[in-house]
Amino acid sequence: MTPTAPTPAYRRLSVEERRSQLLAAALSLFAHRAPEDVSLDDVAEAAGVSRPLVYRYFPGGKQQLYEAALRSAADELRHCFDEPREGPLLPRLSRALDRYLAFVDEHDAGFSALLQGGSVVETSRTTAIVDGVRRAAAEHIFQHLDVTEPGPRLRMTVRMWITAVEASSLIWLDEDKEPPAADLRDWLVEQFVAMLSVTARRDRQTDALVRSLAEDV
Amino acid sequence: MTPTAPTPAYRRLSVEERRSQLLAAALSLFAHRAPEDVSLDDVAEAAGVSRPLVYRYFPGGKQQLYEAALRSAADELRHCFDEPREGPLLPRLSRALDRYLAFVDEHDAGFSALLQGGSVVETSRTTAIVDGVRRAAAEHIFQHLDVTEPGPRLRMTVRMWITAVEASSLIWLDEDKEPPAADLRDWLVEQFVAMLSVTARRDRQTDALVRSLAEDV
Repeated sequence: MTPTAPTPAYRRLSVEERRSQLLAAALSLFAHRAPEDVSLDDVAEAAGVSRPLVYRYFPGGKQQLYEAALRSAADELRHCFDEPREGPLLPRLSRALDRYLAFVDEHDAGFSALLQGGSVVETSRTTAIVDGVRRAAAEHIFQHLDVTEPGPRLRMTVRMWITAVEASSLIWLDEDKEPPAADLRDWLVEQFVAMLSVTARRDRQTDALVRSLAEDV
Repeated sequence: MTPTAPTPAYRRLSVEERRSQLLAAALSLFAHRAPEDVSLDDVAEAAGVSRPLVYRYFPGGKQQLYEAALRSAADELRHCFDEPREGPLLPRLSRALDRYLAFVDEHDAGFSALLQGGSVVETSRTTAIVDGVRRAAAEHIFQHLDVTEPGPRLRMTVRMWITAVEASSLIWLDEDKEPPAADLRDWLVEQFVAMLSVTARRDRQTDALVRSLAEDV
């Protein structure tokens, strides 16, 4: 690998571009297969490069590549939550859910493998990445609800709904993506309101929120 | 370790009793610490036996002991769901939840470590044990609801509620067991009815169930 005689492929891309290319190849493999079933050879082949090149960028091997791919998927997922703070609240939630469900649809096998646990590449670091996405989702929701200091009951309700969304996405994948995504999305939005309404019976902050949601059409 | 000169401790217990004793010691350690923080020496000490004896019973070391302890905890948890099929349904659910929350209370750290994932002793086998408990919980619920063939929407709702119960138990432990268990239990029962009611709008089977729940006081 002397600088005077690089192979064309090595010359074309900058370090950053090459890294992104390898990550994209890895992500699309990890999206549709369990991590156990993806080898570094597969990644090299998908990216059209040699195995040693993959190792040069990811000296930690598959574990490092998996974590990097997961981080990039987590960033993508966070973007699903980006929604202007304008207009009625529930349609904002619907739009974010549409993007989220499209993501789940696109990364089906990887999403299942990751969230169902027990994977060989699962570590406290991968768990932390997933938890970061959950936290980001909760923060987005509180921002949209205009709540700066959610009390424990409201927090518990929102976190519970987020978990319920995850669980139903996994079941949805299990059930061959039935019902259609739009039905699932409407049902999840209604579940959100129903869960908040139960909490509202015992919690003033949540009660005020539910009232404002009812008025905000 | 010749049969003519056993130490008294080795003589007193049968193989099955010894195994149970080691498992109980392991379970109480795993219940209150992350598996990473439990060594075989700790288990031997807690059981008042030697480390080699622990290895004799569990030649697979900590992983095997952890899985066996988990299996025994899973059995215990399944017993929480045992509830006579008599009387109004929601009080039955409340009683099962009381027992479940007492279990969570008693196994707090171990419960969190297990369900939060990323643990060093987590494998596809431990995941399967936990999934088995989830499935058992769902089956119990369908039996109590007198549903022999739950349709996909009802199934999704019940599985979603079970996940929500798990998530709220973890949050409850995180929040130093606040609100009090009885409050959490009532709230979870109300969430159950609310989630089913949302599904009832789109699903006849669930609609019939919700009507019968409303009449069943």
